[in-house]
Amino acid sequence: MDAATVDRSKITQLLADFVVRSAADDIKAPVYTEAVRSFLNWTGCAVGGSIHPTIDRTLAAIRPFAGPGQATVLGRGDKLDLLHAALVNGISSHVFDFDDTHLKTIIHPAGPIASALLPLAETRGMSGRDFLHAFILGVEVECRIGNAVYPNHYDVGWHITGTAGVFGAAAAAAKVLGLDRQQTTWALGIAATQSSGLREMFGTMCKPFHPGRAAQNGLLAAHLAQQNFTSSERGIEAPRGFAHVLSTKFDPDGITQKLGETWEISLNTYKPFACGIVIHPAIDGCIQLRNQHGLKAGNIASIALKVHPLVLELTGKTEPRTGLEGKFSVYHSCAAAIVHGRCGEHEYSDEVVTDPEIVALRRKVRAEASAGIHEDQVDITLTTTDSRTHHLFVEHAIGSLERPLSDQELDQKVRDLCEPVIGAAGTGRLIEACRGTERASSLRPVIESSLPQR
Amino acid sequence: MDAATVDRSKITQLLADFVVRSAADDIKAPVYTEAVRSFLNWTGCAVGGSIHPTIDRTLAAIRPFAGPGQATVLGRGDKLDLLHAALVNGISSHVFDFDDTHLKTIIHPAGPIASALLPLAETRGMSGRDFLHAFILGVEVECRIGNAVYPNHYDVGWHITGTAGVFGAAAAAAKVLGLDRQQTTWALGIAATQSSGLREMFGTMCKPFHPGRAAQNGLLAAHLAQQNFTSSERGIEAPRGFAHVLSTKFDPDGITQKLGETWEISLNTYKPFACGIVIHPAIDGCIQLRNQHGLKAGNIASIALKVHPLVLELTGKTEPRTGLEGKFSVYHSCAAAIVHGRCGEHEYSDEVVTDPEIVALRRKVRAEASAGIHEDQVDITLTTTDSRTHHLFVEHAIGSLERPLSDQELDQKVRDLCEPVIGAAGTGRLIEACRGTERASSLRPVIESSLPQR
Repeated sequence: MDAATVDRSKITQLLADFVVRSAADDIKAPVYTEAVRSFLNWTGCAVGGSIHPTIDRTLAAIRPFAGPGQATVLGRGDKLDLLHAALVNGISSHVFDFDDTHLKTIIHPAGPIASALLPLAETRGMSGRDFLHAFILGVEVECRIGNAVYPNHYDVGWHITGTAGVFGAAAAAAKVLGLDRQQTTWALGIAATQSSGLREMFGTMCKPFHPGRAAQNGLLAAHLAQQNFTSSERGIEAPRGFAHVLSTKFDPDGITQKLGETWEISLNTYKPFACGIVIHPAIDGCIQLRNQHGLKAGNIASIALKVHPLVLELTGKTEPRTGLEGKFSVYHSCAAAIVHGRCGEHEYSDEVVTDPEIVALRRKVRAEASAGIHEDQVDITLTTTDSRTHHLFVEHAIGSLERPLSDQELDQKVRDLCEPVIGAAGTGRLIEACRGTERASSLRPVIESSLPQR
Repeated sequence: MDAATVDRSKITQLLADFVVRSAADDIKAPVYTEAVRSFLNWTGCAVGGSIHPTIDRTLAAIRPFAGPGQATVLGRGDKLDLLHAALVNGISSHVFDFDDTHLKTIIHPAGPIASALLPLAETRGMSGRDFLHAFILGVEVECRIGNAVYPNHYDVGWHITGTAGVFGAAAAAAKVLGLDRQQTTWALGIAATQSSGLREMFGTMCKPFHPGRAAQNGLLAAHLAQQNFTSSERGIEAPRGFAHVLSTKFDPDGITQKLGETWEISLNTYKPFACGIVIHPAIDGCIQLRNQHGLKAGNIASIALKVHPLVLELTGKTEPRTGLEGKFSVYHSCAAAIVHGRCGEHEYSDEVVTDPEIVALRRKVRAEASAGIHEDQVDITLTTTDSRTHHLFVEHAIGSLERPLSDQELDQKVRDLCEPVIGAAGTGRLIEACRGTERASSLRPVIESSLPQR
């Protein structure tokens, strides 16, 4: 979009107009390809997360109030009304902190959008291409609003995946419901006035609640707007609108620049390991060394890491006792990487964290903060019991924009997440169904293959 | 509460503890009396507002998703699940901007609390006294949190009735559900992370959406916490909690000082007129002069007002064309006060605003801003066609804390609101049922008398 033509007092209407006018064919093939990868990653996380106690407690709380069984809870097969299905799938997809990341804003983009859209697709019927088109638009609105307020908005204390996600969910749902420009503007306003989610909740069940609630609130916003429920037409940019009230920075260029030309989903990344991104380079390096040299735990005399200072600050736990504590231990993570060749959710179970072989190995790991090492890097020197030394410098960790997960690696991640829930055959069908979304006449194959084996 | 014993790092837990420990008999009779008045005023507003188009649109949007018919929409008789009934009754009670006001914080206290509690009372059964006890506690939590962040929080752009209301709804529901201290702390945290509602939405349907959503979100928070859904235990006071993220001021004394000794509901006030509080002194004065001297429109030569400057700034519209515009005209309001002897919702209909007798009279009203006149005051000089002059200085407008509405005046307000919806007989039963809440074994009489005549 040409900066000269932008009316900065009408950003919300401009976004609404963009959503309403967008045609599926305006968007090029590689963008759809990335949308499919994002959707597959989201589905894997939601199915994998569905057995977490957070979901049991959510379902116990909402079941007495839920409406007709319109839409499926992934991985479980429960049927809930549209709004509650969006809530539960959204929680489930973020409960392992294993979902996608838009690194520019640290938004986890798919959660709020896909969680709102999949129940809609199940209820109304929708081609895979229409689904992906609305998904891409939702991510676009969400991440561009994030661009406009990040990092100040996050620094104030807002969990941006929830606060920006509600706009994306509203926009995606508005597209599917066929809302006009006025109604879509209202939907974004109704989203703005529900925007919420505090970073104070990190480490509790409320963290995954945020993308779930964003999906549900955005979906409600679109349905209210469809009935001409009014809101401000300047919900984002007005002096008392979202951006100024919830942030100390608002840069409308983050929303308008090249709108419709570049696509934020192209910047999406997928975590290969089920822990904070800051230890990913170290895990990546250990797995590379293990595979190159056929190393086993018994071969290792020592592992010396040079890491970015944040690694020790955030994940310096030397003696973790539980799976969750293991996620905050670079020592455990490296040991698990050597022993198991991966760091999925399983490698952060209590069982693996307390495994004597892993415990012995993690005590041979030393980490030293180094100002010369970037966040995306690690320097590893590994010495074997027969006194050989292997050195590796990781320039960009696997899963970064520079070294994205391959399709095979992404499939493997989804398999690791889903097989414990729906078995190997079901997981194979689920991956195939997700990969075929663009040509599918409905989302039914995805939903059906997400059901647990009976 | 003694300031010396307060741990300022545990305000959320302190509030939870207060709610859990409170016994109905700890609270003295006058507090219950004021709670009954607040509840009656809320019920009148909700029944009266139930015929507004905002409610039609809300119901059309949510009906496809609503769960079992557990609770009643006041004034309409629709049955919705608990959560949606709370939403709709909350919207309805605020749609005329005619509900109660806690002047210290300009919170409208009853909306979020009563809207959450009445559906619970209908679903679970509950004595009137238990209902009022939970209601008083909810208002206490809500208004004390408001005290701690007002006015900065409001100045930032938050609609405090929504943002503080969600805590009150969560606390009241937690009390009714019998949550323990830990669970109540979580409920307040889950409330904190849903706190939302922008002042930008004033003048649109989203304004009454805020107390409705606060009721619904608070109710959900309590039900999640009941299932041990976790949140931060410092949702209010933590550096990234509610108070610091949503306000530039946090004074814990506003929460803790004399907690359990004084009761915020005792400071509640009820609007006698269906317009902004700033013109209430002028309306009050005109009605007093009319009644003292038996004045009719034809008797009036001129009305000269000396008013607080805000009156002209906010309500200086000389030629309103619609009912809504009439609310922003001190001229129309004074004319309607002389002709009808009241300024209820009816006096702000298009019909009354365009009535030639009213139009002619409002053109005889002159208003002059005067620095010496407080917001609660007016100075009126009225001249009659036979050249008599009547002067009146209103020190405190009717409906203020200093001149509260009498029970008879409050009943009349409720009659004006409800009779168009449920008829005179139904309204009489409703008032009687509300007034009898403290001795009632259930809330059923209130709910049943709120139903429209068939």
